[in-house]
Amino acid sequence: MWDDEGPSVPPGDIPDIVIRRLPIYVRTLKSLCDRQVGSASSEQLAEMIGVTAAQIRRDLSYFGKFGKQGKGYDTHRLVEAISGILKLNRQWPVALVGLGNLGRAIANYRGFTPSSFTIAAVFDRNSGQIGQTVGELKILPVDDLPTTMRDEHIRIGIIATPKVHAQETADLMVKGGVQAILNYAPVILKVPDSVTVREIDPVSALQSMTYYIDEG
Amino acid sequence: MWDDEGPSVPPGDIPDIVIRRLPIYVRTLKSLCDRQVGSASSEQLAEMIGVTAAQIRRDLSYFGKFGKQGKGYDTHRLVEAISGILKLNRQWPVALVGLGNLGRAIANYRGFTPSSFTIAAVFDRNSGQIGQTVGELKILPVDDLPTTMRDEHIRIGIIATPKVHAQETADLMVKGGVQAILNYAPVILKVPDSVTVREIDPVSALQSMTYYIDEG
Repeated sequence: MWDDEGPSVPPGDIPDIVIRRLPIYVRTLKSLCDRQVGSASSEQLAEMIGVTAAQIRRDLSYFGKFGKQGKGYDTHRLVEAISGILKLNRQWPVALVGLGNLGRAIANYRGFTPSSFTIAAVFDRNSGQIGQTVGELKILPVDDLPTTMRDEHIRIGIIATPKVHAQETADLMVKGGVQAILNYAPVILKVPDSVTVREIDPVSALQSMTYYIDEG
Repeated sequence: MWDDEGPSVPPGDIPDIVIRRLPIYVRTLKSLCDRQVGSASSEQLAEMIGVTAAQIRRDLSYFGKFGKQGKGYDTHRLVEAISGILKLNRQWPVALVGLGNLGRAIANYRGFTPSSFTIAAVFDRNSGQIGQTVGELKILPVDDLPTTMRDEHIRIGIIATPKVHAQETADLMVKGGVQAILNYAPVILKVPDSVTVREIDPVSALQSMTYYIDEG
């Protein structure tokens, strides 16, 4: 049931909202594998993730048949398959720009490496920062960004600069051939259509929760 | 056209995905107000935000009529109206737990205060941290969390602890009467239905972008 069916739809036709949920499936399945759980039903996964079983089945159906009727999903094979779809079976070098408090927290975060990402180069525009080291990386001047990205085949950038420098940083990343930007600055970036941007936006997250608060 | 129509649907019936977009409208409209732009069409807003004009009109229609045919939206009134809907016309105190690199970056972030949130109390479980100050706040032992939250009417919590302590922190927040949690730990929290949780999850964001990268 696994190998004889390809993806049900061409890649471009999978809704982005489904793609965004796949990392959660990977994380959940990995935690099951770590606990030696070899199979799981869509109901069990749904309970762990907090979505409906129907949604999980619908999401996974985009990629072919992953489960056997009545037997649930093989956790190891499913995590491998989704990781393959997301291209996580390799290590991706990442360029980080902006080494203030936030940038340093990102540079020191230990969760990226086991998740397929390595902070490979760090940049700042502040001459006081340039030349300092963060972990094992020397902070480079931001003007070196395009060249370093091309030389080191870096296609992913993280922007942790102040708001006012976010767009010019994105422009330098585009010059360097960036294809994916994780943006911590509260700015909507203008980039070519070929570049995917995700925002890390704690203010918007907080502001969308107060709506639900009962002030009584 | 503004005052004579109430919300089109009861609050509980507005899809969460719409609620999540409202802060982006607020931010965009505020930037227009700052630039003395008094009105904007859905097309202009759409261009700034990167969604379709139809989506903006559809989103805003949940809350009544905000625009005049052919005249666009009054930016000042619309930002006031959406801020009111999201309950942002006040300052919300927030409890922050976990004062590592990330927690300190959050505590020092200047973007919360102008956006209606004040970090009002900070907690850690590490005795080496307790009693230190971050900005003007003294770090309190995490066991004080429920009492402090109740005493200071704090209904919002931010979890910036290591993964292993995230659930127990959430449990303490629930004891303190939390209604909204912003969770930076890569863990899916179990909380009562009355609590809204949003995740800040840079790893998932990165993992959902590699899908689109052209490795060629």
